[in-house]
Amino acid sequence: MTISGDSMTIPNDCMGIVDGDAVLADDAANGFYAFDPATTRALPERFVDADRHHIDRACDLAAQARRPFADASGDLRGRLLRTIADRMRDARQSIVDRCQAETGYLLPRVEGEFARAVHQLDLFATLAETSRWDDVVTVPADPDRKPLPRPKMRRRLVPVGPVAVFGACNFPLAISVAGNDLVAAYAAGSPVVVKSHPSHPGTCHLVGQAVADAVAACGLPAGVFSLLHGHSKRVSEDLVRHRSIAAVGFTGSPGGGRAIAACALGRERPIPVYAELGSTNPVFLTDAAIAQHGESIAKGFVESLRFGNGHMCTKPGVVVLTRSAMEIWRDLVVQPLAASEPLPMLSESICRAFDQSRDRLIANEAVQTLFAAERPTEANRSWHRGPVWLSAPATNAIAGDLLHQETFGPLSIAVVCDETDQWLDLSTRFSGSLTTTLHHGEDDGSIIAAWRRNAEDFAGRIIASGWPTGMEIGPATQHGGPYPASLDGRSTSVGFSSIDRFVRPVCYQNEFPDDA
Amino acid sequence: MTISGDSMTIPNDCMGIVDGDAVLADDAANGFYAFDPATTRALPERFVDADRHHIDRACDLAAQARRPFADASGDLRGRLLRTIADRMRDARQSIVDRCQAETGYLLPRVEGEFARAVHQLDLFATLAETSRWDDVVTVPADPDRKPLPRPKMRRRLVPVGPVAVFGACNFPLAISVAGNDLVAAYAAGSPVVVKSHPSHPGTCHLVGQAVADAVAACGLPAGVFSLLHGHSKRVSEDLVRHRSIAAVGFTGSPGGGRAIAACALGRERPIPVYAELGSTNPVFLTDAAIAQHGESIAKGFVESLRFGNGHMCTKPGVVVLTRSAMEIWRDLVVQPLAASEPLPMLSESICRAFDQSRDRLIANEAVQTLFAAERPTEANRSWHRGPVWLSAPATNAIAGDLLHQETFGPLSIAVVCDETDQWLDLSTRFSGSLTTTLHHGEDDGSIIAAWRRNAEDFAGRIIASGWPTGMEIGPATQHGGPYPASLDGRSTSVGFSSIDRFVRPVCYQNEFPDDA
Repeated sequence: MTISGDSMTIPNDCMGIVDGDAVLADDAANGFYAFDPATTRALPERFVDADRHHIDRACDLAAQARRPFADASGDLRGRLLRTIADRMRDARQSIVDRCQAETGYLLPRVEGEFARAVHQLDLFATLAETSRWDDVVTVPADPDRKPLPRPKMRRRLVPVGPVAVFGACNFPLAISVAGNDLVAAYAAGSPVVVKSHPSHPGTCHLVGQAVADAVAACGLPAGVFSLLHGHSKRVSEDLVRHRSIAAVGFTGSPGGGRAIAACALGRERPIPVYAELGSTNPVFLTDAAIAQHGESIAKGFVESLRFGNGHMCTKPGVVVLTRSAMEIWRDLVVQPLAASEPLPMLSESICRAFDQSRDRLIANEAVQTLFAAERPTEANRSWHRGPVWLSAPATNAIAGDLLHQETFGPLSIAVVCDETDQWLDLSTRFSGSLTTTLHHGEDDGSIIAAWRRNAEDFAGRIIASGWPTGMEIGPATQHGGPYPASLDGRSTSVGFSSIDRFVRPVCYQNEFPDDA
Repeated sequence: MTISGDSMTIPNDCMGIVDGDAVLADDAANGFYAFDPATTRALPERFVDADRHHIDRACDLAAQARRPFADASGDLRGRLLRTIADRMRDARQSIVDRCQAETGYLLPRVEGEFARAVHQLDLFATLAETSRWDDVVTVPADPDRKPLPRPKMRRRLVPVGPVAVFGACNFPLAISVAGNDLVAAYAAGSPVVVKSHPSHPGTCHLVGQAVADAVAACGLPAGVFSLLHGHSKRVSEDLVRHRSIAAVGFTGSPGGGRAIAACALGRERPIPVYAELGSTNPVFLTDAAIAQHGESIAKGFVESLRFGNGHMCTKPGVVVLTRSAMEIWRDLVVQPLAASEPLPMLSESICRAFDQSRDRLIANEAVQTLFAAERPTEANRSWHRGPVWLSAPATNAIAGDLLHQETFGPLSIAVVCDETDQWLDLSTRFSGSLTTTLHHGEDDGSIIAAWRRNAEDFAGRIIASGWPTGMEIGPATQHGGPYPASLDGRSTSVGFSSIDRFVRPVCYQNEFPDDA
């Protein structure tokens, strides 16, 4: 039943990669296809929902690999991450082509994400090699302390064990198989079982082969990595419920994340779920910013909104400005929006959800349509969609809960305030967001401090005079915030601290004879 | 309706402390009493389940206090913690008396916990004053970096906002109103709403008055602290569901913790729950340890088991040793056990659960009773119980899942292994525990390393030649581990790092004009 596939082709009727090899299904009853969003046509290879036997096998192998992988040196874990990057570079053309076919993204978008993914692998290789994630704290014994002697205490971090990973629909490379969750788990020494995303299973498969090859090349047990395909939520649930899984990394919708968390809490032994969910990433523009830099801010906004056709968790989905600023700014934005070409939505369901959200918002009496790209006819069935820019008075936006409604795709809402007091009040109205941004002018000093203070209450990343899309991956990165940004705003799913999700502190008390 | 009570008396028909004052109920329909476990008699004051109005009021006030408390200097937060400790010292006699009446603990146990609680307040005052919890990370901008310039990134920690606290039945001072969760939240700058424990509401009330007085004395808004009494789970659920609550600190049973977590996940905006639940704290004794130090280890074991009448989350509930070690050790343990007096169980329900667990275990054919203190007659109705020491062969203990069954109270199970291989294998059989302990001899070097490796997989604290009860509160403390020790083994509910639960990272990107 298990047949090794050619390393850079995608086999037919595949359920995933387990024990280092592609697993082919005998029975393709639960088959599904990936689609090319540019043409809406199915791609040729059929995938099959992983069956219970192979889910168990992947998790059992991960459990067996747990100890040897935890004991592997930092150098070896670093080498594994670098070897994955090398294997991906070797297969660059296949991966980029397939990724483009499964997403409909423009080539620079796919190439940029490929570069980010291999950069991220190399960065975390360095972290593994330098053990920068292991935050050891030692307190020496004090036998003379009163009233009780103090024991020696030494705390170090250990990997949590097998991690189930659910990547994002919109980042088939950087937030998927060899993406942010895997690099964090591998730097710490935890095996990974990835559930591939059903809209880009082929990309997952190619990258998965690169990972499986790298695991073998580094002499590590095959259970360090498995990939499971699946369109049915049964595959996800079976994976999260498996007793060997110790933690979950998830990127997706609030509904999906909550379902996974409920599944994890319902286990005989509950496990933590680190989920990055949704965000409207409000951008606040002061009057002075528009007066002094209106044109360049308009250009930056349109670029940020259009990037990846708005399929970004950091898309500027809400812009807050005053009525007088809007009078200056409106045409500066509409012009470049009107000039931009429609681009494919990532999948039929995302396209349908986008249309529904767009129609519902446009039908809202409080909402004004500033620009809405024409939609293809029903008969055409194309998934191409152009940008939509709406506005609503602040009072209506609050009353209609427009501040928290994320529409995945190239749509943004301008929330128009009567004056600066209302503008500042708006910055207290958001409950949770990955980011928030301020564009200010030269003499905005007094309101900047007040705005920042409000921003800290709801956002994970606070940006001055920039744009939320595009993210620096480093020691200070925070990609997480209060719900709906994350289930637990303490965690970050990107950046060096993302490793913290997959390690656990252990404290030694007193002296062991073999203490270093 | 709101009447200020005398600062060191417990008013009748009280629902809690809200807005700085005791709240008295008009209607005592949902009244309940605390009991003195030593006599099984109800104490005179009636308490009343907090009503919806006062739960809302407490949470709304906490939300209003959030900002001013977050903005308070570290010095002021430190002063608040020290003032609480001072107020508790002022009311020491009332608090100790009431605590003893509500727990039936021996005086040294209560006095020891009082000392630990005020020590903890002083320790965290120092942490607040020195801002040791705020782990700032700054990466400077690099405009010349290729292919893209690097923005300046600075990450700091901010308080999460109002925390709901559920203390433990067994630590009315150190893990309750002014206990581990409150000190962590206050050091970080988060207001707290405490749900008092229904078996020691009077102690909670006295300490709550000390906290409320300290909040007022420091000039902070009253919403920084509220106390809600309640016997019904409705009070707990209303509190966790309130939209102003941002995180939960819970210490209690696995069932209770899971119910609170399900409640938190079912909210419109889910919040994290940090729950410390149950643990059997296995102690492993090598043959050499028993041969060389059998008597002192027996003495230490009996003291640890008897401490607080076994009402400890770190009680040594399982001891693992070989058959030959057991032959030497058995009488060394039974003698002091037989000499120990029965002591009161903490409540009627805990007493009943203890009896049921004891009866079920003794009736188990695989279990041998090594010592079981006589139980009072049904007619007597006393809650006094003496120690119970059982044993089971390793194979049966594994098959019957005896390794994970925590019996709250003075009961422990010796798991008897045929030889050292089985003994070592036992250390791979635990799924999660707050602690595990090894007593070894001088020439046990080879098995110590193997045992430690296994211990790291399931325990939060690993102790050499000591006992799990009694805990050092410091920078290396870890009081948490894989389920059932905690819901998320990454967190600790005691020690300096417990602050991490109530802070959230915020990352600034680019330069703000008012950046320090």
